[in-house]
Amino acid sequence: MSHIKGIAASSGIAIAKVYRLEAPDLSYNKNNVDVPEDEVKRLHEALDISKSELEKIKEHTKKSLGDEHAEIFSAHLLVLSDPELIQPIEDKIKSENVNAEAALDETANMFIDMFKNMDNEYMRERAADIQDVTKRVMAHLLDVTFPDPALINEEVVIVADDLTPSDTAQLNKQYVKGFTTDIGGRTSHSAIMARSLEIPAVVGTKEITSKAEKDETIIVDGIDGDVIVNPTEEELHTYQQKMDDFEQQKQEWAKLKDEPTVTADGTHVELAANIGTPDDIEGVLNNGGEGVGLYRTEFLYMGKSQLPTEEEQFGAYKSVLEQMGDKPVVVRTLDIGGDKELDYLDLPKELNPFLGFRAIRLCLERDDIFRTQLRALLRASVHGNLKIMFPMIATLEEFREAKNMLDEEKLKLKEAGHDISDDIEVGIMVEIPATAMIARQFAKEVDFFSIGTNDLIQYTMAADRMNERVSYLYQPYNPAILNLINNVIEAAHAEGKWAGMCGEMAGDSIAIPILLGLGLDEFSMSATSILPARTQLKDLSREEMASYKETLLSMGTADEVVAFIKEKTNQ
Amino acid sequence: MSHIKGIAASSGIAIAKVYRLEAPDLSYNKNNVDVPEDEVKRLHEALDISKSELEKIKEHTKKSLGDEHAEIFSAHLLVLSDPELIQPIEDKIKSENVNAEAALDETANMFIDMFKNMDNEYMRERAADIQDVTKRVMAHLLDVTFPDPALINEEVVIVADDLTPSDTAQLNKQYVKGFTTDIGGRTSHSAIMARSLEIPAVVGTKEITSKAEKDETIIVDGIDGDVIVNPTEEELHTYQQKMDDFEQQKQEWAKLKDEPTVTADGTHVELAANIGTPDDIEGVLNNGGEGVGLYRTEFLYMGKSQLPTEEEQFGAYKSVLEQMGDKPVVVRTLDIGGDKELDYLDLPKELNPFLGFRAIRLCLERDDIFRTQLRALLRASVHGNLKIMFPMIATLEEFREAKNMLDEEKLKLKEAGHDISDDIEVGIMVEIPATAMIARQFAKEVDFFSIGTNDLIQYTMAADRMNERVSYLYQPYNPAILNLINNVIEAAHAEGKWAGMCGEMAGDSIAIPILLGLGLDEFSMSATSILPARTQLKDLSREEMASYKETLLSMGTADEVVAFIKEKTNQ
Repeated sequence: MSHIKGIAASSGIAIAKVYRLEAPDLSYNKNNVDVPEDEVKRLHEALDISKSELEKIKEHTKKSLGDEHAEIFSAHLLVLSDPELIQPIEDKIKSENVNAEAALDETANMFIDMFKNMDNEYMRERAADIQDVTKRVMAHLLDVTFPDPALINEEVVIVADDLTPSDTAQLNKQYVKGFTTDIGGRTSHSAIMARSLEIPAVVGTKEITSKAEKDETIIVDGIDGDVIVNPTEEELHTYQQKMDDFEQQKQEWAKLKDEPTVTADGTHVELAANIGTPDDIEGVLNNGGEGVGLYRTEFLYMGKSQLPTEEEQFGAYKSVLEQMGDKPVVVRTLDIGGDKELDYLDLPKELNPFLGFRAIRLCLERDDIFRTQLRALLRASVHGNLKIMFPMIATLEEFREAKNMLDEEKLKLKEAGHDISDDIEVGIMVEIPATAMIARQFAKEVDFFSIGTNDLIQYTMAADRMNERVSYLYQPYNPAILNLINNVIEAAHAEGKWAGMCGEMAGDSIAIPILLGLGLDEFSMSATSILPARTQLKDLSREEMASYKETLLSMGTADEVVAFIKEKTNQ
Repeated sequence: MSHIKGIAASSGIAIAKVYRLEAPDLSYNKNNVDVPEDEVKRLHEALDISKSELEKIKEHTKKSLGDEHAEIFSAHLLVLSDPELIQPIEDKIKSENVNAEAALDETANMFIDMFKNMDNEYMRERAADIQDVTKRVMAHLLDVTFPDPALINEEVVIVADDLTPSDTAQLNKQYVKGFTTDIGGRTSHSAIMARSLEIPAVVGTKEITSKAEKDETIIVDGIDGDVIVNPTEEELHTYQQKMDDFEQQKQEWAKLKDEPTVTADGTHVELAANIGTPDDIEGVLNNGGEGVGLYRTEFLYMGKSQLPTEEEQFGAYKSVLEQMGDKPVVVRTLDIGGDKELDYLDLPKELNPFLGFRAIRLCLERDDIFRTQLRALLRASVHGNLKIMFPMIATLEEFREAKNMLDEEKLKLKEAGHDISDDIEVGIMVEIPATAMIARQFAKEVDFFSIGTNDLIQYTMAADRMNERVSYLYQPYNPAILNLINNVIEAAHAEGKWAGMCGEMAGDSIAIPILLGLGLDEFSMSATSILPARTQLKDLSREEMASYKETLLSMGTADEVVAFIKEKTNQ
């Protein structure tokens, strides 16, 4: 029995048996064989079973994530049927009298090396495809399990060092009851995805992979960040109870689904959701979202081989706007670069990508890409309540240039006879310290602010939030951050504009009372955080929280802030 | 005749012929030879001449930069005499009947590959040594010139794509009249070094290497950032005049060498210098420095194979303090990581090193390294007017922890009978937005602030200043930066402390009037900027500049700030 402490990344309790998601051991011996024909047969058996698995994964992905995501598996299937790859492997077995494993590995490596070194993005991707597929075939030759999260068909908790975004995308909620990892934090991609899928998760345990074996019973407590391997009967009982309580609490929350968000002293604030695709709207509405505070449009551009067309984008934006009716939808224009790369743009490698050529910086230079998106947004504007938001704005000049491009496209579209809404608000993400610092100057020109805390915190503290060695400096409650947030809200109100927040902080139970006191108008968060936040806000007094403002802003450390809020709000 | 515009990196005018510093073409043909003995002879001739060059460079480096910097060339000389490298080359010539070039290249590459892949920092460095030395020998075999800036013995202007710190370190002021490069900016290492050596320089021309050929006459105007290749007689005359004027101006400035720095309305501010080694003090005193505002101790740790001992450091600190007499010396503790690496510490590669594990973050974890430095500083404190400054402080907790280590070492040293000064001021660099934002809280605990603008600007604007694609965002005059600087100065004064600045901005003629108006107490800059700054300050009214403060702080863009200051100060 082991008790392991980690970071609570997604609420809820999961109890199931361990499924270890890990790279299989594919080492093999190179042997001489007497009957090469047997090896050729083994090769083809491994190829066939690999193909049928890939077909299944492709179907599954198509259903859960759509055609685009499934394309990668079509490419993999093509590799497995390519005679230019398969024939040389057979030839090698026969001419050198070696086993299938050696022939497969050596032939594949030859192709991989050849493609990898070509100065051509397409061929380099083919090298990656061959590598992926070869591993699967090799696993079947060696008769070791090749982990396919998409094919899990019994209730499990996934245990892994880390989950890639594509691993997480393959998870089937019906069977995957929870997951827990060695690395990662509350704002890592897998944690955000877990909240969006409503799968309980504990990340950053540092040691779970060395403590939990296949098929052992495991409890993942995503509320308090605890993991228990091989629990006692008593523990099982306790956590079963906690799981039931959580389900009951969710039902309590659900009662507020169609209620407005009102504090104990009668202030209304707006609780909105962060989304990535039109498919997320169902969850937003089920969780009582009053709007979309952040529509991340990057997913339209990712996992494909070329830029999305204006029509494709128009379709996605229209779908989101129509589903939301008259509720506001804040669409963020393309925020690519930094940790989000697009292979087909072939951007140069940077020494410090987080401080580099990304988001609006890239869009202003590649205005062909930017204007296509703006046109799609403008045309969709008549289908709902659209607000447009530019990311990574650092200077007034950048905002003016982007706004100017928008106005130009609007004029052109109108001249071409398109219907465009005339009251689209245009605002900015505040995620760069410079912008928060002179928010007063920006507030004269923008229609709204949305504070992006993930980036704002990492720039303000000069600490990469993905870098474990400095992650202690990712401090949402640092008084410096609170002062910057206060700057932004005060600036907006002074000019009669509104201020929202779409970073992870907006849904946090310690942050909510602080932000309420600072006067934040809109809180945008994971859809699943909306009802708990509404419940919390119902019991908070805005006036009381506002009375703590000066005290909080003049504190010296994040720890003082947290202790103070916990005491005042009984957390 | 070409006129090229670049970035004025170091003041003054240079007129001389072009010396192109570039990697030589070392391509060769692999031939079969009839008389291998001739090839062995050619090999040894090339080895001998390479050795004699390296001896000269070693002697030169020892004189100009000291024993430590010369060590690298001792290592190179050892390689050239190593029979384990030379014998296999000879064997290859004789056994394969190939020319010396092919035998040298193939043998050296074999060793380089072998050493490079070893999991041992020492062996990887040997690989780099062999690579360097092989190039020189190859150049002699091929009879192409191998550029050695240290061996230049006629008056030249260096033209290069870029200069590495080690290139710059080898420059001999007597012959190298100036330099100009394709890349780099005002704050790149080579620009800072040029100002410290007082060599006129224009960097970031983008095209000088494609415009200037060997031995053509070239003018480098480091005052206005102009470069002229093959000037007309008239231009030569004009720039000769400008050079004379500049010399005369320098003599005017020199008259203020022993004067205090006083504004037109009688305010005294302190003009100090940034230094890297004890050898820089001569330049500080010759240029009328009133103190050392930033002693970068990194040089003690760089270009060697292990950490400097406490005694070594004590010697350097004592030397600086003694030379400065009772003038203040602000020593910054180790600021390593980011773009400054130490091979022997073997730090992990980071995705965003500027937002990573560096400076105080590293020192607090590796407190063995940090405490050694603190002890050396404490012991040296009785030899002058020492102030200790911690870099990259982001939170109060970090400052408290560092200060606590200092107090512990002080107590231990006193108990061991050492004499330690009792009035050492302990302050921090303000170079992280969070710290500038809540400077008021820090001011209660620190003795002084020194604003490090290079980093502060890049974090506040979220733009890597070394990344050409976003370098337009490196904006010292952005009102957000001015507001942060104002925060820091007001916070210091509210608590009766002083605020200085040790970034490049402190010596800039546009920044000086602004900083005077904001109330900055100490300006620390390149030694050569001190007298021009003192001259400028003599004519400025502090009261007038202070009256512009609110106007400047509420401006929207850097361009507005610059235009306003230029108009008010006739620049």
